[in-house]
Parts: sequence; C-alpha cells; structure tokens
Amino acid sequence: MTEILVSEVGLRDGLQSIKSIMPLAAKQAWIAAEAAAGVREIEVGSFVPAKLLPQMADTAELVAYARGIEGLNVVALVPNAKGAERAAEAGVHGISIPFSMSETHSVRNVRKDHPAMLEEIRSVADIARSSGIYFAVGLATAFGCTIEGAVPEDRVVRFAEAAMDAGAQELSLSDTTGYADPAQVKRLVRKVRAVAGEALTTLHLHNTRGLGLANALAGLEEGITTLDASLGGLGGCPYAPGASGNLVTEDLVLMLNAMGCDTGIDLDKLLEVRNILAEAIPDEPLYGFTPDAGPMLDYRDRVAR
Amino acid sequence: MTEILVSEVGLRDGLQSIKSIMPLAAKQAWIAAEAAAGVREIEVGSFVPAKLLPQMADTAELVAYARGIEGLNVVALVPNAKGAERAAEAGVHGISIPFSMSETHSVRNVRKDHPAMLEEIRSVADIARSSGIYFAVGLATAFGCTIEGAVPEDRVVRFAEAAMDAGAQELSLSDTTGYADPAQVKRLVRKVRAVAGEALTTLHLHNTRGLGLANALAGLEEGITTLDASLGGLGGCPYAPGASGNLVTEDLVLMLNAMGCDTGIDLDKLLEVRNILAEAIPDEPLYGFTPDAGPMLDYRDRVAR
Repeated sequence: MTEILVSEVGLRDGLQSIKSIMPLAAKQAWIAAEAAAGVREIEVGSFVPAKLLPQMADTAELVAYARGIEGLNVVALVPNAKGAERAAEAGVHGISIPFSMSETHSVRNVRKDHPAMLEEIRSVADIARSSGIYFAVGLATAFGCTIEGAVPEDRVVRFAEAAMDAGAQELSLSDTTGYADPAQVKRLVRKVRAVAGEALTTLHLHNTRGLGLANALAGLEEGITTLDASLGGLGGCPYAPGASGNLVTEDLVLMLNAMGCDTGIDLDKLLEVRNILAEAIPDEPLYGFTPDAGPMLDYRDRVAR
Repeated sequence: MTEILVSEVGLRDGLQSIKSIMPLAAKQAWIAAEAAAGVREIEVGSFVPAKLLPQMADTAELVAYARGIEGLNVVALVPNAKGAERAAEAGVHGISIPFSMSETHSVRNVRKDHPAMLEEIRSVADIARSSGIYFAVGLATAFGCTIEGAVPEDRVVRFAEAAMDAGAQELSLSDTTGYADPAQVKRLVRKVRAVAGEALTTLHLHNTRGLGLANALAGLEEGITTLDASLGGLGGCPYAPGASGNLVTEDLVLMLNAMGCDTGIDLDKLLEVRNILAEAIPDEPLYGFTPDAGPMLDYRDRVAR
C-alpha cells in the first residue's frame, strides 16, 4: 500500500480566508480530534503580523498545544525570516514559505520581487538549519495567476531549482488560483522532479473549479506523496462566490482510502470533526460530498473477487 | 488532440430521477441549445411505459425533433425488446440497454435475472441489426451495488463477454451507485478491454461522492473515449440527499477542454443552457463548480511557455 500523507491546512489556509475568527479552544479541539482520527501532519497557522491577519494571532500557542500530541507533525507557514524566527522559537517541526511564481502577485502580496524572495528564502533556510527544523518552499500560482494569467512552466522549473539552491529541503506546487488541470499537473510535476527529484513531495490544490481530486490523482500518478487539504474545504475562494476553496480533506481521504492508499486516517472519525467547525464558525459554509453521500464500500470489499 | 465524445444524458438519467416534469418545449430547447454549443450526442429519453416514468412519455417526439438537427447523434435507452422496437420506429441512431451486474438489482429493477437479461439482449440486438441502428449494452452497478455490496470484477468481465456474444456493438461501464474509485476504474476498464477491446467505449459515472472527474480521468488514461454526463448534474441521487447524481457536463467539459482534449464544445455556450433548466424546472437544484468559478485560462494560453 502506498503511504500518502494528508496534510491538514484548514487551520491556516482555511481560517485565514474567512471572516469568522475561530476561538483558540475550538482550534485546539480541531487539532486534537483530527490527530485522533489519524491525521499525521497539521499546518496550525502562520507567523504573520497579527494586525494583518488577526485569525492567525494565536499560532504560537497552537504550536505549543499541537507539539503535545504524540506523533503529530506540526508545521506553520512563514512569510519571511522574521516569521521563521518566531516559528522556530514556538517549536514547530517544520516551516514553509510561499514563493509566488507570478512576480506581480508576489509584489502585491508580500511586496517582494523574485530576487528579493530568493534572498528571503536563503535567510529562512539559515534559520531553519540552525534551529534544526525542516524547510519547504511552496511554489505558489504555479499553475496560473489571476493577475498575470498563464505562468510559463519553464519559469516554475527555474525557480524550483533556485529554491533548492537557496536551501529548500522540500518543494510544493500550489494551485493558488484553482487553475490547474490534470494534464498540466502531470507535465509540471514531471518537469520539476527532473530538476528537484523527490524533494518535490507536495501538491497544494484548490477545488475552485471542481478539479481538485482529479488533479490530486494526476499528482499521485507522478509520485506525489503529500497532499494538502482543508477540512470542509474551508476557505471558499474570495474571487469565486459559491465555489469551495481548498481540496476537501474528507473527500480526499475517501478517495485515497478507497484506492487502497495508506493514509492512516479513519474517515468516520474525520467526519465527526466537522461538528467542531459547524459549532465554532456557524456562518461559514462547509463543503464536501462525503458527508451527505453515505457509506462507501470498504477497500477490502472492493477488491474482493 | 484526443477527440472525446461527451454524451449528454441529462434528458434521460437526469429527468427520470427528479420529481418535476419538464415540458416538451423546454426539452426541445435544451437539445437545440446543447447541440448549438457543440454537443455531438444526446440521449433524449427512454422507451419505457409512460405509466412507469411519465417524465419519459414524450421520448418518441424528442427523437423526431432531435433527428432534425444536423450532425447530432440521437440515442435512447431501452429496457427491453419492446422498447427497442419503439426506439427503432421513432428513428434513433442508437439504443442502449442497461444490464445490471447485481442480479438482485436487476430482478428488482426490471424483474429479470441474468439469464433472462442475456436473452433480452439477444432480442434487442436482432431488432437493432434489422433496423440498422447501433446497439450498446451498459453494464450497470459495475463498481458495486447498494443492495449486494461489492460486485466481483470477474463477473463484470464475464458478462461483458456474454453481452458481446449476444450482439452488443458497444459497451459502457456504469457507476450507477457512485461507488467507483479511480484505481478500480483503471483495473476494470483494463480487464474488460482485455476481452471486449475497443468496444468498451464509455463510462457512465455518478458524482455522488465527488469522485466523478477523478474517475473520468482514470478512464481517459485507459483509453475511454466517451463520457456520459448530465447538464447541471441533474438527477441528485435519491439515496444521498444533497449529493449530486450524474457527472456534471459543464465541469467535465471544463476539465477536458483545459487538458487539450477535443470535445467540440463551447463552454460559454454550454453554461447558458443552464438557464433553460433553471426556468423549466425551478425546484430542482443544479450542480457544478464551473458556473460560479469564473473564467479559466484557455488551453492555448496554459501550454504557452
């Protein structure tokens, strides 16, 4: 059985995209319940200035809490070296920094052009190395940008190499805008793996146009071993009202378990975690087909002849 | 560019699964508008007794109407030889008969066990041959049955062969229950193609658990060239409230066009056809991500380096 790591990013990418602020206790309950369901990695938040993203103000406390859970890999997003220092102090196992392949997006989002971002990545790599935490770079808008349009694949390959040279230990391809299609996922994973090898572990997919699971499948077939997902698909895309944002963790786990991948996750227990979100942030829609669709055949029954 | 046939089944599988009855004029407008958007095949209804499925009472009139549209392949479902005769009289290009791999489902649904179904298929094949129309058999519940549970793959292979021997010209694998997963789709397509070759043209997928597009992708990778889909995902599964039924035509076309497949379908025009449904059957929910998600990058831009 292929082991696939489902990395829960709802506490970061989900919560930072919605208006509601989830109380610390609910976030802790969410983390504990997902870990109990078998989730092995959670991105608990991001180390950004609280005045920019008040939803992320308690990230350090969440890291401390999550580190108390045996066997859970605790990661956080950092926008820069300062965030990396705070993350290391808080005690994360790993950090990741988004590096937008669209320079326009990068400048608007973090006010850094591509050379400045590579400089920042080098600083963050130094901090990670000296703190003994692992360090991933997320190649954002890798499949296209709502501002710039198409992103040339050769550019993504070039910056994947540059990010590795700057000290990244792992790479992720992010479909920030929900533009990816399965053929493109295969092409780009193959091209980036040609220069970065198995350091390209992860796909971060959005489900804006409903292609999330098909794109995930395309990535798995090219050797991707980690998939980011958000419980309830939390974080509807602000540019696409009614469209869910992140890949829905429940649906992804349903698919992977049905295919016979080893996620280590108990789907029934995972589905119960939705209740925590429904209570804590009742105004936010939760997405996903699995909760309504009723039980699926167990993998052991499916392959029975 | 790989040519993929998207076969619209909303007028049959969609409309037969909902309570609302769509007026003939709206059905005609739907057919005309989809054909104008580039859809090359439409299953316009089924030849079942009108007292069983009043939604399908006007199928013969729809066949006559649709045959007037240049270049459109007009097909209908038939449950038995009597239906096949009516379909041939009406002037269809082709017919398909569902053959449930779950004998329990078959007996409950059409009161025929497997030997009786094979007998019926032989009769239908004779009618098709003498009428000069093509004849497909849809292997229903091929991926599992809500009553029987798992369906052994060897059984599906055996009946695929038997259906070909009985005179089927084409085969379809139907995920009637929304149980299929991508790994299973690949295994089963490969196994059935080993005995039936390229006569296995089609997948009929449901999106009950959100895996529809991922399963479609798995089928395409194994050489499937026809995909059934329903506009607006019409026909929510009666066993899964809130879950959509058929694969959503709009989302499928979005994916295929983005991947560079040749569907011949203009997505913008296809999306406008939803208005006909929204007006004619306002109580029925329409599914799909594409309508809310805003424009996608054009394929020609996506592959631009």
